[in-house]
Amino acid sequence: MTLDPVLARIDQNMPEALERLFDLLRIKSISTDPAFDTDVDAAADWLVNELQSLGIDAQKRPTTGHPMVVGHVDGPGPHILFYGHYDVQPVDPLELWDRDPFDPALEDTDAGQVIRARGASDDKGQLMTFVEACRAWKSEHGSLPCKITFLFEGEEESGSPSLVPFLKENAEELSCDIALICDTGLFESAVPAITTMLRGLLAEDFTITGPSRDLHSGMYGGIAMNPIRVLSGILADLHDDTGAVTLDGFYNDVPELADDIRAQWQGLNFDHGIYLGDVGLKSPAGEQDRTPLEQIWSRPTCDVNGIWGGYTGDGFKTVLPSQASAKLSFRLVGQQDPDKIRASFRAHLESRLPDGFTVEYRSEKGSTASQMSIEDPAFEKARIALSDEWPRPAAYVGCGGSIPIAGFFKEMLNMDSMLIGFGRDDDQIHSPNEKYNVESFHKGTRSWARILAALSN
Amino acid sequence: MTLDPVLARIDQNMPEALERLFDLLRIKSISTDPAFDTDVDAAADWLVNELQSLGIDAQKRPTTGHPMVVGHVDGPGPHILFYGHYDVQPVDPLELWDRDPFDPALEDTDAGQVIRARGASDDKGQLMTFVEACRAWKSEHGSLPCKITFLFEGEEESGSPSLVPFLKENAEELSCDIALICDTGLFESAVPAITTMLRGLLAEDFTITGPSRDLHSGMYGGIAMNPIRVLSGILADLHDDTGAVTLDGFYNDVPELADDIRAQWQGLNFDHGIYLGDVGLKSPAGEQDRTPLEQIWSRPTCDVNGIWGGYTGDGFKTVLPSQASAKLSFRLVGQQDPDKIRASFRAHLESRLPDGFTVEYRSEKGSTASQMSIEDPAFEKARIALSDEWPRPAAYVGCGGSIPIAGFFKEMLNMDSMLIGFGRDDDQIHSPNEKYNVESFHKGTRSWARILAALSN
Repeated sequence: MTLDPVLARIDQNMPEALERLFDLLRIKSISTDPAFDTDVDAAADWLVNELQSLGIDAQKRPTTGHPMVVGHVDGPGPHILFYGHYDVQPVDPLELWDRDPFDPALEDTDAGQVIRARGASDDKGQLMTFVEACRAWKSEHGSLPCKITFLFEGEEESGSPSLVPFLKENAEELSCDIALICDTGLFESAVPAITTMLRGLLAEDFTITGPSRDLHSGMYGGIAMNPIRVLSGILADLHDDTGAVTLDGFYNDVPELADDIRAQWQGLNFDHGIYLGDVGLKSPAGEQDRTPLEQIWSRPTCDVNGIWGGYTGDGFKTVLPSQASAKLSFRLVGQQDPDKIRASFRAHLESRLPDGFTVEYRSEKGSTASQMSIEDPAFEKARIALSDEWPRPAAYVGCGGSIPIAGFFKEMLNMDSMLIGFGRDDDQIHSPNEKYNVESFHKGTRSWARILAALSN
Repeated sequence: MTLDPVLARIDQNMPEALERLFDLLRIKSISTDPAFDTDVDAAADWLVNELQSLGIDAQKRPTTGHPMVVGHVDGPGPHILFYGHYDVQPVDPLELWDRDPFDPALEDTDAGQVIRARGASDDKGQLMTFVEACRAWKSEHGSLPCKITFLFEGEEESGSPSLVPFLKENAEELSCDIALICDTGLFESAVPAITTMLRGLLAEDFTITGPSRDLHSGMYGGIAMNPIRVLSGILADLHDDTGAVTLDGFYNDVPELADDIRAQWQGLNFDHGIYLGDVGLKSPAGEQDRTPLEQIWSRPTCDVNGIWGGYTGDGFKTVLPSQASAKLSFRLVGQQDPDKIRASFRAHLESRLPDGFTVEYRSEKGSTASQMSIEDPAFEKARIALSDEWPRPAAYVGCGGSIPIAGFFKEMLNMDSMLIGFGRDDDQIHSPNEKYNVESFHKGTRSWARILAALSN
């Protein structure tokens, strides 16, 4: 089965492929908010139909949370598992979007034509590059070049609570020779990447309670301890003046970067001035003795993702609030243990609570960092296939984000993962006005067609 | 004109007096939120009708904000100005109320029967004690014992933006021998008080902007400075370990307490354990070298009244937000100048902004503290009249809250003010489930009847 007619078919089918993607983007599959449960379910149904239309044996499979979509199709080559997720992040602040986040459209920009919608890049557009590559293979040759299992998740943006039980229960069915995960980005617009290093994630969501009710700051200001003052101190003390995280033992299980990886990263000539300048910032805020790429890819972090307390409406209210709350997340690397970091954070917090104050935690399970072994020849086959499609050769890179599934595949299915994706740094994923370049979608689809050919040889 | 039948008439009229107060409490006159502008106006109309029904020449007087209600009635004694405000605080968090805040009701509690509603204590219930005292005088004797001017404000809870221009424009009409202001409390349930020392107020409302848009904490966490981290540092640095405010020059214009006042306050046997214990707290949080009463009445403070930034909804979002915001207020004493304190705070904030960060302020005019001279014999007449009504003698006290009008009356109308009110510390003003004891309303009305008699002699 030859590759060239498949690539030509992809080029020819682009308008219909975009329409199919737009259909999926219109479904409000926000997994973090129960108000959208029906929409998440509808997105799963849509994908089942889509796979079935390609002759794939696909089903919606229930979990205790949102469903998984699983599909199987036979073929001659190695057995590959493809993973993507069909759920999306919330859209607020809605007023910062230039259009309805669930009314996708093509827009011309200085960097080319883009698909504008929530989920365009993360992860519906990426997921569909693989589906469209399969469609082109099937159309042209009547079958696929490998045996493929599809796994589409609907809870990736809400911490994947059902993933581990599902993988455990269906380990035999889902174990393949290698996994392809499409949820990462290009290194830059001309340089594709295979991500081999991923940070883990630990989230903490909590409320501090001081006074038993909201107080009048005239009557109690001065004498009553203010929970926002307490919370500010807890958060301000999380970093020292050099940008390092102060939690006890935080860096214990953080390895130094290997010399060969350090050298490779230096060769990438990453320009942090441009990276930060694009979002209106000037200086790197992480550990000052680390390079900017290390700060993003291989060093652990702590960020406050949300904070609230007291009166936040229009006008003014002289209230001394009873409560103050925050959502924090830690990006973990190396062998950092989420449970140990959580315990260290809680000790930090609780040692700063005044007498009589209490704290309530609403937290989810954390994930450790993953590092791929690139000794499997599939890695080099895929890297060459990518390099054939794009202007410059593909690189092995790190990723600041957390995609815990690669670790779960290794641990539970004994399967390595190749993380290949076509997003760009300016895709504004998790932010207003998310987009995915049409070039990412088009060349991404072509890349998968090439990778399937390469892996089946 | 004798007092006793007036007091008897008050006792007899209580059911109707409560019904009239309930009518006023049903009007949602929240002045801080433009959505309630019509309601604020309706409350002014209600009061005009109420005063007119007592034969008082009353009018709603326009301002650039909410209207003033002004009434005049002639009489034999000295010319008194009575001030109260008919606007109320916002009601959120609404879910913490046990009933609709604008559906007043009587409730039996361990501390006696209470009127439960937003504004019951602050300030509609208090304002109506004076109106009902006048009604009883008028019913019993056909006229009032003094010449009285009424001034009811509709913007007290939103910083009184129209008050100063209105006083200036109408200075001749509003200048009297002395002002009575009913917006303060009893010292304790058996001890009435005349407040002679009031803290000033300065509010700051601001937003810090760092990144030009919300970022993904996986892609930018570590390298991008988080505005919530910056804000936490700014707020945490406002107090030192001893509870003192750290702003440059903050205590420059703060006088030491006079020895005689210190001695009088010690005699009040204030139990801060009970005061704080009532609201679930244990230790005083103010300057550790000051007594608890000083912390509330005569020392300046800084409190965060609200904070917000990033994702605050259900679930979790790994966002690194573009902005973080807070509302702060300072309680001022002595000769502290709001403009100087504001400048010092802004210098504190701006010196902690990283390169490239900006700040936007939404602030209102501040007010200085006031201290009454109690040499006018009216003070002692009123103190004795109050002592006749209540179980224990009245005291001259301080007040942690800010009632800038007393300062404005002195400055613009050259008139001293007596601050007399019947609220209790547990009235939950500005909080959910605000209440006013029926005893406060009843004995408060009787107290004003006595004070009018005393001042007219």
